[in-house]
Formats: sequence, structure tokens, C-alpha cells
Amino acid sequence: MNTDAPSPIRPTDDEARSLARDLMNKARFAALGVVDPESNAPMVTRVAFGTTPQGGPATLVSDLSHHTRALKANPAASLLVGEPGSRGDPLTHPRLTLQAKARFLRHGAAGYTEMAAHWLRDHPKSRLYIGFADFSFVLFDVHAAYLNGGFGRAFVMTPADLGL
Amino acid sequence: MNTDAPSPIRPTDDEARSLARDLMNKARFAALGVVDPESNAPMVTRVAFGTTPQGGPATLVSDLSHHTRALKANPAASLLVGEPGSRGDPLTHPRLTLQAKARFLRHGAAGYTEMAAHWLRDHPKSRLYIGFADFSFVLFDVHAAYLNGGFGRAFVMTPADLGL
Repeated sequence: MNTDAPSPIRPTDDEARSLARDLMNKARFAALGVVDPESNAPMVTRVAFGTTPQGGPATLVSDLSHHTRALKANPAASLLVGEPGSRGDPLTHPRLTLQAKARFLRHGAAGYTEMAAHWLRDHPKSRLYIGFADFSFVLFDVHAAYLNGGFGRAFVMTPADLGL
Repeated sequence: MNTDAPSPIRPTDDEARSLARDLMNKARFAALGVVDPESNAPMVTRVAFGTTPQGGPATLVSDLSHHTRALKANPAASLLVGEPGSRGDPLTHPRLTLQAKARFLRHGAAGYTEMAAHWLRDHPKSRLYIGFADFSFVLFDVHAAYLNGGFGRAFVMTPADLGL
């Protein structure tokens, strides 16, 4: 790293923590990054996004999806939440990158019922397919987070900063 | 793979090719997936998105960004374009996943002037920082593409399907 360059990283404060938590709470979809088992290269897809009853990030996926097969082969994942609206500069809109390990929560497993009830409150349309045998939740254990509050306002965060 | 399960992949037709090309042409930002050199795990961030004069995917990045350092260490990348509007179900909105290798195009290199002129037509606000020494273009050589035209409408595409 060029030590002459000014660091773009600001010290994390409560305003940044609150913004990051808010981005997670409001997101209904995310960009999911996985390692493609066929090419060993990154692959980014759109997935539904929500939280667990404990506030952790989660998604609901089908076994038929490429990203689901990838996460079964390698649980390393990243999620980007915080979608720009249709107006304004998208690069000034705040967004949060999470790095995490994926864990599957299948029908019948301990905690599934509570997770499904929590999910359906925020994702009522999932009722159409949540019961299908090939659908399961993926819970993400976050180990690092990066908040970009807009051009030049970057923060490196811990799970504790997100209340996790 | 479970051969009892119906394949969600449809045969690629001209309508799908046209939709994929349209998503690339209209996108002004994307979710970029890279391999984080610090953790060797995927990392997804938001970047500006545009095309080269030849129609290939491109972005404009700062050397200060984490994803830039990652792409210098490992050029394997993925891009997700096709942002849902503020209304409707985001998972029924069409989107395109690209898998590619990143190539840097710096100030003064052959083709830089043409690329910058092309970029500024679609990204006029970039004029504020495109001249900074730490900014450069990244051009992506696509090797695979996946179009999701909405729930259950998936296509596996080649660069030729995208006119590349």
C-alpha cells in the first residue's frame, strides 16, 4: 500500500454503526458473491435478503440455483446491501459489504419454524414457495463488514459494530 | 446434480440475447465480485459500470479501493447488472451475471483516450475525478454469462451471445 496516499477509511462511530444496521434491516434483496465451484472464480447473483430473529443476515434459496450449489461446495460468501433509488448518483448512495460463512437451515431443523415466521413477516410473497422441499434458508455468520457511506466515506466494521 | 429435478435453464434465443445486451447497455453501476487477497474469500462492492467502444463491460476505479487492490492481486471477477426499480418484486426483475478477467487501462495507455471519451458520454459526473492519477479503467474480458429473466427463466450464455 502506498503510505503517501491518504487513507479513505474513517474511524467507526455510532452514526456509521446505525447506518450499517439500518441498511441490513431495510434490505429485501442483495448481491451475493460466492466462489463458483466449476471455475474457482467469483460469481455474483441477486438473492432475497432478510434477517434472522437474532438480526443476522439470511437468504432463502432453491437447491436448483447455481449459488446454492456453490455455497454447498464452499461456504465463503459476501453480500452487498443498500440499493440506490432510481434518482441521484448511485455511487453516493450508502451500501454495506458483508463477508461471511454460509450455514444452511433446512425444513425440520431446530430453529426453522422461528426463522420462517420471522422471514414471512418481511417477505410475504415467499409464502408461495417457502414450503417446497428444495428451498432452504442460508444463514450468514459475518466476520467482516465494510460500510461505504458515499464517495470517500468508508468504514471498516466488526460483527459487534452490527450488533452481531 | 439431482437428475430428477427439472433443469431451470432454458435454451438461449434472440429475445434472451437482446435482453442481456440491453441490461449491459443501460447499466450505470454494478455489483462487482472479487477475491479478497487478505482472506481469499469473495467480496462484493458497488462500482460504476459502462461499456468500452467495442461494447465490453468496464468500470472506472480508484487505486485506493479495496476491490482495485484485489483485482491487481487476482483478475478473476464477476459483475451483476440489471437493477430493480423501486416497485415490484426485485426477484422477478431481469439481471445478468458476468464472469470475466480484469485488465487495467491506465492514463496514457493505447486506447485510453477513446475509452475516456466513450465513458464520459454515459457518465458525465466522472469528469470530476477521471483525470486523477489514482483512477484507471478496468476492462473485463467475459468468459461466461448467466441471464436470469425473472423467477424460473434462466439462460447460460457465451460471450458471442452478448456480441463480444
